[in-house]
Amino acid sequence: MNYCSVCGHKVTIKIPEDDHRPRHVCENCNTIHYQNPRPITCTLPIAPDGRIVLCRRNIEPQKDLWTLPGGFMENGETTLQGALRETWEEAEIHAETGELLAVISLPAWDQVHIFYTVKMADYSYSTTPETNEIELFDEQQIPWDELAFKTVESALKHYFHTCKTEHFVLSSSVAP
Amino acid sequence: MNYCSVCGHKVTIKIPEDDHRPRHVCENCNTIHYQNPRPITCTLPIAPDGRIVLCRRNIEPQKDLWTLPGGFMENGETTLQGALRETWEEAEIHAETGELLAVISLPAWDQVHIFYTVKMADYSYSTTPETNEIELFDEQQIPWDELAFKTVESALKHYFHTCKTEHFVLSSSVAP
Ligand SMILES: [Zn+2]
Ligand SMILES: [Zn+2]
Repeated sequence: MNYCSVCGHKVTIKIPEDDHRPRHVCENCNTIHYQNPRPITCTLPIAPDGRIVLCRRNIEPQKDLWTLPGGFMENGETTLQGALRETWEEAEIHAETGELLAVISLPAWDQVHIFYTVKMADYSYSTTPETNEIELFDEQQIPWDELAFKTVESALKHYFHTCKTEHFVLSSSVAP
Repeated sequence: MNYCSVCGHKVTIKIPEDDHRPRHVCENCNTIHYQNPRPITCTLPIAPDGRIVLCRRNIEPQKDLWTLPGGFMENGETTLQGALRETWEEAEIHAETGELLAVISLPAWDQVHIFYTVKMADYSYSTTPETNEIELFDEQQIPWDELAFKTVESALKHYFHTCKTEHFVLSSSVAP
């Protein structure tokens, strides 16, 4: 950040009064430009036979590796709405609800990834501009070495673990 | 947002290629300025005798109403680290860990509130510049009509409910 998004003046980096961290501050209009981590909302879609949907990414980063549907949460929506919207956009899977599975922080990327499990009503899904292949996997078939993101691996491992034990929501962080 | 924070040029609002929402776009340096909800991280501190810590706000908004410790998550930290930092800053309660309690979306405010329960090791706490009074309450004593925020009410109700039933993490949204 170089310029104030409100008035266009150059910003300076300083610790505002009553604060203890350096911020981008506009000395012209006095706006303090806080920067915060961004939420990413995702689902783990479960087919009627219990297999998991993975999507092969058709876009960078990590093109051609396997992922769960997900993306940046938009203003004006809830975490669940964001997760279900991404699931439609990436795999044309429609669902009305989901159950919270994991909240995983990526402090090195200033992101928080929030995963929901989604029970699919049927086998309706489709590739999209963001996804060049969709496949159903059971636990033994998951392509662990070809997953796009560490958080996807964590969410999948947590899901298979909680299948066998009591359900709990994972809250953890992923190393850089 | 009126100006590009990268180059200082005026931004225009348009739907970028491969997108389907209007964004703030800089036609000078081609930056797309996405805007996303901001995470707020909070705790519900539990004293050794089971009572809950509430803080009376010394700052606006909702000055003099009761709240749980919490605030905007900072870049570079995890959700739990953010929640524990705020708990120190607002009540001088030190804790090493916490358990995920609730993820509550506020779509009207473009916020996601993430609550952890924290088991206090002792009765160490203190007022701070942000908090003019700290008190311990059991369920019957909670000042429900003097709570600062709807999400605090939701988190407290969920906590007292899960005390009596199986533990689960609340994922819900709060109406405007
Ligand atoms: Zn300014
Ligand atoms: Zn620009």
